[in-house]
Amino acid sequence: MLMLARNISFSYSGSSSLFVRHFSAFQNKGPIIFNKKYLDSLDGGYEAPQVRTSSVPGPKSLECLNRLSQFHLTANVEIFVDYKASSGNYMVDADGNAFLDVYQQIATLPLGYNNPTLLKASVSDDMMTLLSSRPSLGYAPSVDYLALLEKSLFSIKPNGMNHSVQLMCGACSVENALKLAFMWYMNNKRGDRPISQDELDSALKNQSPGCPNITVMSFSNAFHGRTLGCLSLTHSKAINKVDFPLFKGPIAPFPSLRYPLEEHVRENEAEEKRCLEEVENLMESYEKTSPVAAVIIEPIQGEGGDNHASPEFFKGLQKICLKYGSAFIVDEVQTCGGSTGQFWAHESWGLPTPPHLVTFAKKLQSGGVFAIDGIIPTQPSRIFNTWMGEPSKLLLLSAVLEEMKRENLLSLVRESGHTLLSGLKQLQELYPGHISKARGVGTFCAFDAKNRDEMVSKLKVKGINVGPSGRESIRMRPALIFQSKHAEIFLNALETILKEM
Amino acid sequence: MLMLARNISFSYSGSSSLFVRHFSAFQNKGPIIFNKKYLDSLDGGYEAPQVRTSSVPGPKSLECLNRLSQFHLTANVEIFVDYKASSGNYMVDADGNAFLDVYQQIATLPLGYNNPTLLKASVSDDMMTLLSSRPSLGYAPSVDYLALLEKSLFSIKPNGMNHSVQLMCGACSVENALKLAFMWYMNNKRGDRPISQDELDSALKNQSPGCPNITVMSFSNAFHGRTLGCLSLTHSKAINKVDFPLFKGPIAPFPSLRYPLEEHVRENEAEEKRCLEEVENLMESYEKTSPVAAVIIEPIQGEGGDNHASPEFFKGLQKICLKYGSAFIVDEVQTCGGSTGQFWAHESWGLPTPPHLVTFAKKLQSGGVFAIDGIIPTQPSRIFNTWMGEPSKLLLLSAVLEEMKRENLLSLVRESGHTLLSGLKQLQELYPGHISKARGVGTFCAFDAKNRDEMVSKLKVKGINVGPSGRESIRMRPALIFQSKHAEIFLNALETILKEM
Repeated sequence: MLMLARNISFSYSGSSSLFVRHFSAFQNKGPIIFNKKYLDSLDGGYEAPQVRTSSVPGPKSLECLNRLSQFHLTANVEIFVDYKASSGNYMVDADGNAFLDVYQQIATLPLGYNNPTLLKASVSDDMMTLLSSRPSLGYAPSVDYLALLEKSLFSIKPNGMNHSVQLMCGACSVENALKLAFMWYMNNKRGDRPISQDELDSALKNQSPGCPNITVMSFSNAFHGRTLGCLSLTHSKAINKVDFPLFKGPIAPFPSLRYPLEEHVRENEAEEKRCLEEVENLMESYEKTSPVAAVIIEPIQGEGGDNHASPEFFKGLQKICLKYGSAFIVDEVQTCGGSTGQFWAHESWGLPTPPHLVTFAKKLQSGGVFAIDGIIPTQPSRIFNTWMGEPSKLLLLSAVLEEMKRENLLSLVRESGHTLLSGLKQLQELYPGHISKARGVGTFCAFDAKNRDEMVSKLKVKGINVGPSGRESIRMRPALIFQSKHAEIFLNALETILKEM
Repeated sequence: MLMLARNISFSYSGSSSLFVRHFSAFQNKGPIIFNKKYLDSLDGGYEAPQVRTSSVPGPKSLECLNRLSQFHLTANVEIFVDYKASSGNYMVDADGNAFLDVYQQIATLPLGYNNPTLLKASVSDDMMTLLSSRPSLGYAPSVDYLALLEKSLFSIKPNGMNHSVQLMCGACSVENALKLAFMWYMNNKRGDRPISQDELDSALKNQSPGCPNITVMSFSNAFHGRTLGCLSLTHSKAINKVDFPLFKGPIAPFPSLRYPLEEHVRENEAEEKRCLEEVENLMESYEKTSPVAAVIIEPIQGEGGDNHASPEFFKGLQKICLKYGSAFIVDEVQTCGGSTGQFWAHESWGLPTPPHLVTFAKKLQSGGVFAIDGIIPTQPSRIFNTWMGEPSKLLLLSAVLEEMKRENLLSLVRESGHTLLSGLKQLQELYPGHISKARGVGTFCAFDAKNRDEMVSKLKVKGINVGPSGRESIRMRPALIFQSKHAEIFLNALETILKEM
């Protein structure tokens, strides 16, 4: 019934002989024909979830947990995975349960499990060199490092952001974006004056003027990572932060919008206006004592509740940053890499100029920062660490990008996302007491559930793996090879649970 | 002349048929016979440095630099390396210069370049799975994750430290060690009382009591990384810190000892006593306002000047920590992994009980923390990140450890270190105006040079790559396959430069 109600606006080619390859561009125009045979093959024969144990995690996962926890942090471990048996959209656990994985290792696997293109890219002379003789990239990069960057990360640079720093994880990316913003802000204050001896001497003791009293504005429900600098800007969950001394700073309200967005335009506009006014109030009130050197925000708050805001909000925010001389940092650690239907979520806002800094990690395999002109320092020792990224991940990323291009995966994301979101919207109309606020861009979708944790568990027993977001939401972060048929499997499982409730 | 003066206290077997394999233990007793033929083969035919360009970096490195710097941070890039052409102790650059590498990618390559055991370990079914389907280790580890840990990291656990958290880089390791220490300290304060609602509510806003006013004691000239939390504890170089708002906290004096240590026992004892008194004074003065939850220290300050302290100093420091209920964190990011002649530098101190926390990274391929009982949390969400380490690096580490065992590399480090240090001591007696303070443990050696940066450049032109440490020191961080013959090459080049001065 539900399946018939959905509009399929893309067409599949059932045979590999018909599929059209697009090497030249990620963004295709006109109707897209996918190589469905190849895409189907990625699941390694799995056509539906298979749960063999009466509860999840099953006895073998629990046994692994019991053993590992004697020697290792396991407080957040949910399941033990048989990575060799997993394939495409299906994650197989220690007990042989096969889950449709709509979470994909916390949104990090771009092509699912054991993708053949990635398996092939894992074995090469280049990979062997990178693994056995790992460079300190900030000190002695390889002669072909620029070529490696060009065929991977630089081929998907955000518009107008031509400079980059490589790092390993999302937290280090945010930490370094903050440092770049602080330096840029203080350089602007200093003008042509060089760093003074007084600044140097005091910095060594963590005192001003060398360590100035400047701050970063973050937003309610934000998530920017868990190192102490990042955690100071993270406000998604109290338990993440308890017992840690953190930096003080202005926390602005992130818009609390009503969904579906298109049905609540006027009140959402008012809410965003209120938030921008509060941003400006905070700018003013911090200006005298500890001015705001940077504002950091996620395009969609992907950990603190999948909260959205409009392009107009982000444009307004950038405008305030420009007015106060603060760096505008867009944290795309979770939104980058294709799951919103494009590589960079912020590019859909139509900003008049690019943000100062954009951070990335997760689906792009390793972390880093993109910056506009005039931000990356030329003076040694200001931004550095021992490894500065992980070149083997860039090699893998180049294979990911090849696959995305060849298989039109950004288009597939838009198609599957449409199926997913319209299905969720239908279900929330059919079961209004139980789920609500279906929302999303591409397959970066979420909905609220009355008893969220119970719903996540029930989905798991039905063979569907999803993640929580915020206090009441369930987030979907499938791989880029997630098809409409996978969305249907998920929606049918959800409907079965809703019927039983 | 100099070569004859050195005592060779270990014997080589010239033929592979004579070498003795020790699979059972890293620490051998009695005379060690090395498989010199195999060790020699690792250098891929290079028997001496070969510098072809009149200056270093040469024109091709400069061309690479010019191109990369248009798009990427390059402020600390010194050279571009041909990693495929490099072998063992020899690093080959873009211009075909072959350097004896006594720095090894900032102390990170345990077995030099293109080690055959590591090349072999780079290609396997396990490696392909780990690279193509990377787990979120804190959320869904592999069924064989414990087995992987057991054959790698856990086989070299520090004594009495049975619990671990995996991370990717040194900075994240220190950040998480701090967080573990803060939680442990506050748990001790709370006793049996659970975290209160007031603590939760205030933590979300970075306010006390949830974010308590507690601090960490660091030492002058320390280096603990460059994320904002780590950088607050780093005091090796002012330019690292300028423009960044950092955490305040007590900075104790690290002992400023006279070398050689054995000739200045009494005055060094007095200096260490003075420093410990200052530690205790700081403990007292912070106790009322912002108590010291943790003290962090490096066994040898490997970035801030290669400063040593005695086992008695570290024992005294631990005693003060125990008295004030502060966590004692030993930062072994640079000292771990064998270059001091053992896996963990702190194990030579003879501490009555293990430190609370030990951090590692660099030569162990990825980062992390070891902890004693009662520190790793069982409550979810307190210590977490998306990836929590990098299992492909653990697979490489298991191969590193195999090679170290089979080739007796810890013994080799002790032998080469002896050659290196005794040679440096002779040179400083012959050229007292130019170099001084030869010091070290294993091959983790350093000396002071009158015009340090000039000396580093001159060594480079002679085909020797070393690193700076602090303001006046040159540090040596060769791979574990560095032999006495390599030490001789280095010493002869240094002597040639000294003669010319």
